[in-house]
Amino acid sequence: MALDDKQQYQTRQFKVVGTRVKRPDGVDKVTGKARFGADMSAPGMLIAHVLRSPHAHARIKSIDTSAAEALPGVHGVVTRADFSEITDDDFTADILDNCMAGDKALYDGHAVAAVAANSVAVAKRALKLIKVDYEVLPHVTDVDAAMEDGAPVLHDGRANETVPEGMSPNVLARYEFGHGDIEAGLAKADRVIERTYKTEATHQGYIEPHACLASMGPDGQADLWCCTQGHYMVRNTCAAIMGMEQGQLRVTASEIGGGFGGKTTVFLEPVALALSRKTSRPVKMVMSRSEVLRATGPTASSSIDVRIGMTKDGQITAAFAELRYQGGAYPGSPVEFGSMSAFAPYDLENVKTVGWDVVTNRPKQAAYRAPGAPMAAYAVESAIDELAKGFGLDPLAVRLKNAAREGTKASYGPTFPAIGLEATLRAAKDHPHWAAPLGENQGRGVACGFWFNFGGDTCVTLNITPDGTVTVSEGNPDIGGSRASMSMMAAEELGIPYEQVRTIVADTGSLGQNEVTDGSRVTFAVGLATIESARAAKREMCKRAAMVWGIEEDAVKWEDGAAHPAGENAGKHPPMTLKEIAAVASNTGGPIAGHHEANPEGAGVSFATHMVDTEVDPETGAVKILRYTVFQDAGKAVHPDYVEGQFQGGAVQGIGWALNEEYIYGDDGILQNAGFLDYRIPVASDLPMIDTVILEIPNPGHPYGVRGVGETSIVPPLAAVANSVSEAAGVRLTQLPMSPPKVLSALHSK
Amino acid sequence: MALDDKQQYQTRQFKVVGTRVKRPDGVDKVTGKARFGADMSAPGMLIAHVLRSPHAHARIKSIDTSAAEALPGVHGVVTRADFSEITDDDFTADILDNCMAGDKALYDGHAVAAVAANSVAVAKRALKLIKVDYEVLPHVTDVDAAMEDGAPVLHDGRANETVPEGMSPNVLARYEFGHGDIEAGLAKADRVIERTYKTEATHQGYIEPHACLASMGPDGQADLWCCTQGHYMVRNTCAAIMGMEQGQLRVTASEIGGGFGGKTTVFLEPVALALSRKTSRPVKMVMSRSEVLRATGPTASSSIDVRIGMTKDGQITAAFAELRYQGGAYPGSPVEFGSMSAFAPYDLENVKTVGWDVVTNRPKQAAYRAPGAPMAAYAVESAIDELAKGFGLDPLAVRLKNAAREGTKASYGPTFPAIGLEATLRAAKDHPHWAAPLGENQGRGVACGFWFNFGGDTCVTLNITPDGTVTVSEGNPDIGGSRASMSMMAAEELGIPYEQVRTIVADTGSLGQNEVTDGSRVTFAVGLATIESARAAKREMCKRAAMVWGIEEDAVKWEDGAAHPAGENAGKHPPMTLKEIAAVASNTGGPIAGHHEANPEGAGVSFATHMVDTEVDPETGAVKILRYTVFQDAGKAVHPDYVEGQFQGGAVQGIGWALNEEYIYGDDGILQNAGFLDYRIPVASDLPMIDTVILEIPNPGHPYGVRGVGETSIVPPLAAVANSVSEAAGVRLTQLPMSPPKVLSALHSK
Repeated sequence: MALDDKQQYQTRQFKVVGTRVKRPDGVDKVTGKARFGADMSAPGMLIAHVLRSPHAHARIKSIDTSAAEALPGVHGVVTRADFSEITDDDFTADILDNCMAGDKALYDGHAVAAVAANSVAVAKRALKLIKVDYEVLPHVTDVDAAMEDGAPVLHDGRANETVPEGMSPNVLARYEFGHGDIEAGLAKADRVIERTYKTEATHQGYIEPHACLASMGPDGQADLWCCTQGHYMVRNTCAAIMGMEQGQLRVTASEIGGGFGGKTTVFLEPVALALSRKTSRPVKMVMSRSEVLRATGPTASSSIDVRIGMTKDGQITAAFAELRYQGGAYPGSPVEFGSMSAFAPYDLENVKTVGWDVVTNRPKQAAYRAPGAPMAAYAVESAIDELAKGFGLDPLAVRLKNAAREGTKASYGPTFPAIGLEATLRAAKDHPHWAAPLGENQGRGVACGFWFNFGGDTCVTLNITPDGTVTVSEGNPDIGGSRASMSMMAAEELGIPYEQVRTIVADTGSLGQNEVTDGSRVTFAVGLATIESARAAKREMCKRAAMVWGIEEDAVKWEDGAAHPAGENAGKHPPMTLKEIAAVASNTGGPIAGHHEANPEGAGVSFATHMVDTEVDPETGAVKILRYTVFQDAGKAVHPDYVEGQFQGGAVQGIGWALNEEYIYGDDGILQNAGFLDYRIPVASDLPMIDTVILEIPNPGHPYGVRGVGETSIVPPLAAVANSVSEAAGVRLTQLPMSPPKVLSALHSK
Repeated sequence: MALDDKQQYQTRQFKVVGTRVKRPDGVDKVTGKARFGADMSAPGMLIAHVLRSPHAHARIKSIDTSAAEALPGVHGVVTRADFSEITDDDFTADILDNCMAGDKALYDGHAVAAVAANSVAVAKRALKLIKVDYEVLPHVTDVDAAMEDGAPVLHDGRANETVPEGMSPNVLARYEFGHGDIEAGLAKADRVIERTYKTEATHQGYIEPHACLASMGPDGQADLWCCTQGHYMVRNTCAAIMGMEQGQLRVTASEIGGGFGGKTTVFLEPVALALSRKTSRPVKMVMSRSEVLRATGPTASSSIDVRIGMTKDGQITAAFAELRYQGGAYPGSPVEFGSMSAFAPYDLENVKTVGWDVVTNRPKQAAYRAPGAPMAAYAVESAIDELAKGFGLDPLAVRLKNAAREGTKASYGPTFPAIGLEATLRAAKDHPHWAAPLGENQGRGVACGFWFNFGGDTCVTLNITPDGTVTVSEGNPDIGGSRASMSMMAAEELGIPYEQVRTIVADTGSLGQNEVTDGSRVTFAVGLATIESARAAKREMCKRAAMVWGIEEDAVKWEDGAAHPAGENAGKHPPMTLKEIAAVASNTGGPIAGHHEANPEGAGVSFATHMVDTEVDPETGAVKILRYTVFQDAGKAVHPDYVEGQFQGGAVQGIGWALNEEYIYGDDGILQNAGFLDYRIPVASDLPMIDTVILEIPNPGHPYGVRGVGETSIVPPLAAVANSVSEAAGVRLTQLPMSPPKVLSALHSK
């Protein structure tokens, strides 16, 4: 990767960026000082709980709340009747309907009413007094079943212009991407395989359940404290649902105990606001784990057909995929991203994907880390692996041969700038892991993955305090180390020690609009805004030094944390450090700050290659992860510990998805495993240490070459583990999770 | 006042400014939604209480906290030993010493230790277990007594270079202002009077006692919630005391239940931080009323000599005052401001003031509305009144004859720009109140008052939300309506309705340094920064509109809340409103904001004339306020309701000071009236409606002509009431408060 000479920014000698400084939230979190969603309270506060549908699909004929309202200690009950209907915005109307059911309950756990009371006990007792008259309807939870003729229909009369006539009314969008001629390409192949893969819905599994505290006055002004990945999104969505102006609602994000995409929408917040409006009291709501699993966003389950042609030397001649994602009871599954990302790692002449967005009687999906991509990659990378192995080719060599690179026209449209897929494949090939011996019942799998990375609306304010410490104010909840990263980038740019900077997450009243913490956008976009804010502050500090020295502003340069007279004034005055300039700020014009607002593009796509060794127990079907190595292009890795943590976390979540995690519905449409005992996420004892190799191909769109790193790492593991298990078991598995019964049954079918 | 033609800004037609819009905090405050200092809590929080000295002056020989520490439920005890000594900054060292006594307890109520425990009951029980070995020392509480030879000395070996040798060691600063030749001036007078006046210490009397919640982690990062007039001051002071960098301490100001200057310093905050550091738990502290009165800042008591010469036609030929203020146990009484303001209303050829800053065994004074000025005005305005009446002259005419005006060289140095004293005197002369008949035992008094008004470090950020509402973020706690004023000025400047703007008070992590809410600086300085922020946002919005229209940026002008194509493009595109521009902000470059940081000068001095009728009950000595009218120059009155409220509030506090309020110390140096039953502030039934006349002489230093209004209104009432009572009683009273026994004794002495 001789990129150094091409990329001037890579020649930059970083002093703070790239080091492993202490994280600012570490002590708070291990000592319990950090305040999460449920850690806020207010005088006079009520506690609210939600009544949820016990049916997968039912018409709500009536709700009688009178007995609940009459219970002493109950202050208010809300149902859908307490919300105005939203007629001009389907997206927000669906969110409201998901927060509080209208005519129909659409899934097991769907909210139908909520009670605010003096205590948890009273609220729960009141829930039992609410009488809901349901007409139970037939239901459907499987994506393929939902597309069949005669399947129960969730939304009568709802249509989407992209969907051709004759499709099931449960199909609510169609997407298509690609270029070239699939049939012509397939005709050039030595072999074409056609496979169908299925994945199950998995939950983001954040440790912290949703929680919020809402307080609305009779004047309609409200304050909201909640755990979220985006308090501006909460503000804007709740304002739309409540019929408020955005400026009337001030939202503060608590510390967040995991989100992974699942906290990019609202569930409780509008309900708490409605109850606060009704009772004129602060209202607190906290979900139980069972509520989190029943009623907050898992990801979509999927069913994917893949057709790929390959020559015997490993050239892919054509690639087609048809993706069917069910996103729960409302449209908006991530099938569009799945269709875009499926073949993104490859430089293909003939490529096409078709995506179908399907509704079923399940909770509305929420984003889950690289939403839509892992299942698409699972299907595509399984098929490529099968083809490569069928020809006796090295699966890494096949991927390298077809790898997307700078100049490749991506399957979803754009032409790639400098990207790092090849670098990850080469690093994988050169790694000792690839050459290590395997034992009996063991297999090794590799797979590639891709994620777009986003930009989005971003505001940052940087202030210099009188003693010369620096506060950075950003508007994105810190889910992956952004406070550390921003402090590091500010320190780097200002030329001061990291410890001199403290970054905080501002509330919606204190800073302008910020896109949600998602899409791996924050280190890129907020980082860029932080650097620009620091540059603005440097300009101002040079101006102040010029004033003190009585020289022209442009005769001052900033270097090593200090203003220096430059040009013909060089050496005529001793440098003024940031602390010295801060000390005289008040007398040279007032406080010093830098600000930046932007919607930056150029987030820089990112690629990873994962390698995993597994052992299959032929007697039980249990799969053990023996060794796992992540190779990923991070762009410039701002804080390598966090980058490695993201790589490891993505791999582990992908392992869970591949091996154990799944939403299990009974024939009655009721979720059977709504708890962490039955919904099994990987724990430390299930896993080896996840090895990581950080590759740093600078993103030309960022001053320090930063790319997003948080999502790509969950894309390859489903396929990598499946390829490994298929080798270990000697039989190809095409359905996730590869839980012991499924593996055993595959072994028996050999 | 034909100022309109001179002052272009007065020709501006205001649409929002000057109206009486709904206050944004009104509903919150009357419904209890507003969260004051004591309304914050945190999981795992401890409650702390303070052990206070029962002696006026005592050496602390030892403190044994072991029994308290051993009490179950006690988590930590702090004494002065838990703080590092401050050796390089006397000002901060005194604040620390006042928060927690060192070698000596210097007044009744001085903090000597504090306990953090599970509950209030445990904390209070623990206080009783702390054994303090005191060596009681002689004490002094009167300012004149403290200046005598042989008076008990508070601070051995402490000196100030301004104090001449031979003065009592309790005198810690001397100030002098003036110009001309006093003796020569007095020689030209037809009469010279020489009087001594005394005033007692009064408390600011805010309804909300001090309260805070501190949380510090073992990494030294801390968060603090408190009621204060300046959370940046709290941050900077606490950081200095705790040895922290300012950036490591994030302070959030609660809603504030009154301050009046008394919340411009810290009392509990460093103690709560020290206890939190020691216990690694959040620590909450709330004062009782008795603690507020015993240990937080009253104002100084004073003793003032005045010598004034006047010709028989009312011309003042020379004026001299010597002011002695005791500011409690530490230097820093407001005698400097008293010495500067004493003769500020007059255009004098020969004027001089000397001020002495004296320490006594009383709580450290804190600022109280126009600190130092009311007692100086009381002395000067009493003497002028006596002279005028002695010559049979109209006291308003005498004041008009000598009044400071544009071009007057003020007694404290500067030359006045356009000012409003004459306007207030003329308005008073023309008012029906001046001509109204008086009955038996009734009198009418007038007096003038002056306050400087301040600027100071100020930061404002204004953000446009996606739906086109506007949030203004300022850093000054709203003690007098600043949220309303800022929203109004932002709305005015942007050309949108007031209701479209919400102003919030940001924490210290979210915004740059802001001077304390004091000196009547906020409407002026924060208003100026708000207007400049709005102007910056308008420039950005014009740029966005230009982008949409494809025309040059400078071909767009802002008018009536919308961007309009101008010049040769005029009329070629329909105007784009703020809401329309906000809706496309994300696609035209990102969020739109305006920012301003400054340390503005030109706050604009302000003057008032007060007129009051009183009736003296010859049997009891009780004084009844019959009628009261305030005439004050407000500059442009942004929100007349609030301005009138400030006028009325200042007058009422001054009435309390004049008639009833005083700190009563026994011979033992113990405060005898530490409660609102015995420390008597005026209540509604004591008062008539206070009439107000707002005069609007624009401040040339502010774009809308705004001046501070909050402080001047407390300056004249002491003298106005005294002049009125002296007329009603037929005898001149020279000591405040004019409580019934004092009035009765004056009547008897006639």
